[in-house]
Amino acid sequence: MHPQRWGAPSEASALSDSVRGLVDAFVGTRDTPAVTEVSVPASGLSDDVLGSLKTAIGDDAVLVDDESRRLRTRGKSTPDLLRARSGDLADAPDAVVRPSSHADVEAVLAWAVEHRVAVVPFGGGTSVTGGLAARRDGFAGLISLDLVRLDQLVSVDPVSMTAVLQPGMRGPAAEKALAEHGMTLGHFPQSFEYASIGGFAATRSSGQSSAGFGRFDDMVVGLRMATPIGELVLGSSPANAAGPDLREVVMGSEGTLGVITEVTVRVRAVAAEKVYEAWSFATFAEGAEAMRKLAQSGLLPTVIRISDEAETMVNLASQSDIGGDGVSGCVMIVGHEGASVAASRAEVSAVLESLGGTNLGEERGQAWAEGRFHAPYLRDSLLDVGVLVETLETATFWSSREKVYQAVKQALETSLGEGTLVLCHISHVYETGCSLYFTVAAKQADAPLEQWLAAKAAASDAMVESGATITHHHAVGTDHKPWLAREIGPVGVAMLRGLKGAVDPDGVLNPGVLIP
Amino acid sequence: MHPQRWGAPSEASALSDSVRGLVDAFVGTRDTPAVTEVSVPASGLSDDVLGSLKTAIGDDAVLVDDESRRLRTRGKSTPDLLRARSGDLADAPDAVVRPSSHADVEAVLAWAVEHRVAVVPFGGGTSVTGGLAARRDGFAGLISLDLVRLDQLVSVDPVSMTAVLQPGMRGPAAEKALAEHGMTLGHFPQSFEYASIGGFAATRSSGQSSAGFGRFDDMVVGLRMATPIGELVLGSSPANAAGPDLREVVMGSEGTLGVITEVTVRVRAVAAEKVYEAWSFATFAEGAEAMRKLAQSGLLPTVIRISDEAETMVNLASQSDIGGDGVSGCVMIVGHEGASVAASRAEVSAVLESLGGTNLGEERGQAWAEGRFHAPYLRDSLLDVGVLVETLETATFWSSREKVYQAVKQALETSLGEGTLVLCHISHVYETGCSLYFTVAAKQADAPLEQWLAAKAAASDAMVESGATITHHHAVGTDHKPWLAREIGPVGVAMLRGLKGAVDPDGVLNPGVLIP
Repeated sequence: MHPQRWGAPSEASALSDSVRGLVDAFVGTRDTPAVTEVSVPASGLSDDVLGSLKTAIGDDAVLVDDESRRLRTRGKSTPDLLRARSGDLADAPDAVVRPSSHADVEAVLAWAVEHRVAVVPFGGGTSVTGGLAARRDGFAGLISLDLVRLDQLVSVDPVSMTAVLQPGMRGPAAEKALAEHGMTLGHFPQSFEYASIGGFAATRSSGQSSAGFGRFDDMVVGLRMATPIGELVLGSSPANAAGPDLREVVMGSEGTLGVITEVTVRVRAVAAEKVYEAWSFATFAEGAEAMRKLAQSGLLPTVIRISDEAETMVNLASQSDIGGDGVSGCVMIVGHEGASVAASRAEVSAVLESLGGTNLGEERGQAWAEGRFHAPYLRDSLLDVGVLVETLETATFWSSREKVYQAVKQALETSLGEGTLVLCHISHVYETGCSLYFTVAAKQADAPLEQWLAAKAAASDAMVESGATITHHHAVGTDHKPWLAREIGPVGVAMLRGLKGAVDPDGVLNPGVLIP
Repeated sequence: MHPQRWGAPSEASALSDSVRGLVDAFVGTRDTPAVTEVSVPASGLSDDVLGSLKTAIGDDAVLVDDESRRLRTRGKSTPDLLRARSGDLADAPDAVVRPSSHADVEAVLAWAVEHRVAVVPFGGGTSVTGGLAARRDGFAGLISLDLVRLDQLVSVDPVSMTAVLQPGMRGPAAEKALAEHGMTLGHFPQSFEYASIGGFAATRSSGQSSAGFGRFDDMVVGLRMATPIGELVLGSSPANAAGPDLREVVMGSEGTLGVITEVTVRVRAVAAEKVYEAWSFATFAEGAEAMRKLAQSGLLPTVIRISDEAETMVNLASQSDIGGDGVSGCVMIVGHEGASVAASRAEVSAVLESLGGTNLGEERGQAWAEGRFHAPYLRDSLLDVGVLVETLETATFWSSREKVYQAVKQALETSLGEGTLVLCHISHVYETGCSLYFTVAAKQADAPLEQWLAAKAAASDAMVESGATITHHHAVGTDHKPWLAREIGPVGVAMLRGLKGAVDPDGVLNPGVLIP
């Protein structure tokens, strides 16, 4: 990825004149280019210390050049980007280590414990919660453990419909390899093009097709993890009563308990038919009620998401090429995938119509499906013109949906002041509740990082105080840690610390991340 | 419950002459009545020590009479029953303590830590894996913490379709209270009539309607637990990415990490229609394949289970009143529940027919539904005539189904010798695999307990060696502990110990249970 932006450098582009005009009117713009001359701190690990690692896993598995280290410095949250754009590379790792096997990973961990080196597991580098910003104080150095070479489809089981994937596979590579067997994983988060299988598991990712395919944690049936005290292999059965489900502990552990080296996932047959269509509802609340009804009737389509009034307006305005006229209220995207979707589509459509929905046809649905991974590029283009943009998300039960929505929105607007645009959508639904995903845009102040951190804190307070989770699918990292402590309380924190002490007694794995 | 048998004493009955004749022919019988004069060991806790507890939570919350203690001695596995039938009450608790609130439970735990008393949480007393047989050595005494007074439906949320239940509610009471709100939990394990909400959560129970309603762990969205270091409250949202899912740690913790004092569950609307029907398949393998097809097509009915050839034959023979003739092969029970079942029933039926199934109509299905909780009574009647009967269960992936089935069956037959009857059914199915539930009958040897423990060890070895889980829905208790250690390995064991040390540093909670 681009070291200061999301995604492929070739995709970086300026805002079109029309969009810039629109942003100017709402928020105001000012050219704010990224610093181009940057300097990466020298590696703090000696040749001697690195030499023993090279002996263990091979010379070419250990990189110390500036560009390799720069590319593994932090993740892709707006604070991460603001730091990268200002030339701040203080968190650069001392080396990038690329193991080729589970045994290599175990060797790296043994070496790290011996030399007291902090280890930051690195998959796609797409964390938006500070998951790659481990604390290095108290350590001789810090390495980025890049799993890029563990990128194979290990095996498929077409009877059980499972597959074993290595953690360094990116989303598209995993889908491509599975497609050769007629299989799909069905996990499509916005980070799909860059994020990795190991990262999906370690952060409890949830994708845009979660209504049909479930969250990533629903897909995982087995895991292999290297820890400083040895290997953990889980997955004797689809489900069992053999004590606490330790898969659910490995998932969400964000590299603090071990390094995931294999993931066994449930797969499905590639869908023969895929249809995405748009619907409109008079209000966000009406659309949300329709989603609740579908979820509680067992009638969820593969994809279902609805934008609130503000997000609908902005989306339509910025997609004027596909027609912004003739739609008011809130747009819902509904996707049907399967061997044959006609029957289920008809059922879902009947419910949506009966609850006030108007079918807008497939054009807008298809446009959403085609552009679904592109939004992060827009954030960079907006940062280029002095507009602070970030997203944050939560989940709650249906009966608290409106309360949480208003509380978070108001917290952001109050913190960021006049001219702030807060957009929201619901994109993951359950029988008992849903996610709420906010996009915020505001004019950058002179200290944009502090400006954002204050707004983020206000929004996070609002989430936890209204009983919602601090994160539905972005994970904890370093950014959400204080609120995780409030969400799970001191006993929950003690449990996490007990787990950490048991498998990583020297604390070399992602220090400072996740565990309060 | 009856102290030496399953269920209500009034339901205890001798085998009918026809069934006894059948059992005689297959296995052989010999009257083997239970010991009637028994003596409960004196309570080992002094009045002083118990006095401080009475002061804290009330005089009537602490019972030391023989009958109260006898009724909380161990659970309802066949080994437990054999010990009870022989008059062995060595594991009787020193007192039975009945808290009325979360605060009471916290007070009991504080008292237990102070006086070094072991605490065995007690719900329905239906454990079949030694979950109520905690180790008392190293402790001043052992109490049974009976949650019977925590038996209320605390609240319902009809928008989110959730309900908060206290842990001491038995299955029927929970369903009755929810039905007043038009709601159902849909959790119907064979122990339904006696087992408790807290026990369902603590043991990761799975009910006979799991195909439609999911396992109990799928239903739980929130938990409250009292631990020696304080209160844990979980359940900010239906699902989230806020670190490891600690709900999945509390579930399956079997009273070793804390005492569950509230469970928030997802509920559903009471079904307007319920239809149970029977199908027949030529072989167990063919029926299992049909179940796999349904699961992988997203077409699961509410109930689906199939008996292997031997179980089908025995069931038909013992239910001659509903007609044992005209059926060969394997009988499958299929249940459809919902607001309207015609459409989904037609879809499921079409698949079953296309895969070789023959519809046997509703009579046998209805008979199954009506008798579904009665099988444990039959076990007692068989023990009365010297026939050793027990059940055990596992789960595996579809591709290993046949291998695991044969391995466990053979292990039991080899261990128990000629005249052993091993029956099996599949009653819980997933996209990637299924459960296998075995019923074993053999003539009692002179030392039936040792006879069974050897057979159980052989079957457990077979499960773990063939890669299956040691338990799909009966939990670990003390009986499965050595095999749990093999299933999750030393790192998994270290994780459990880390959790235990964090929340119960003095180890008073269910010592010797679950954690290797």
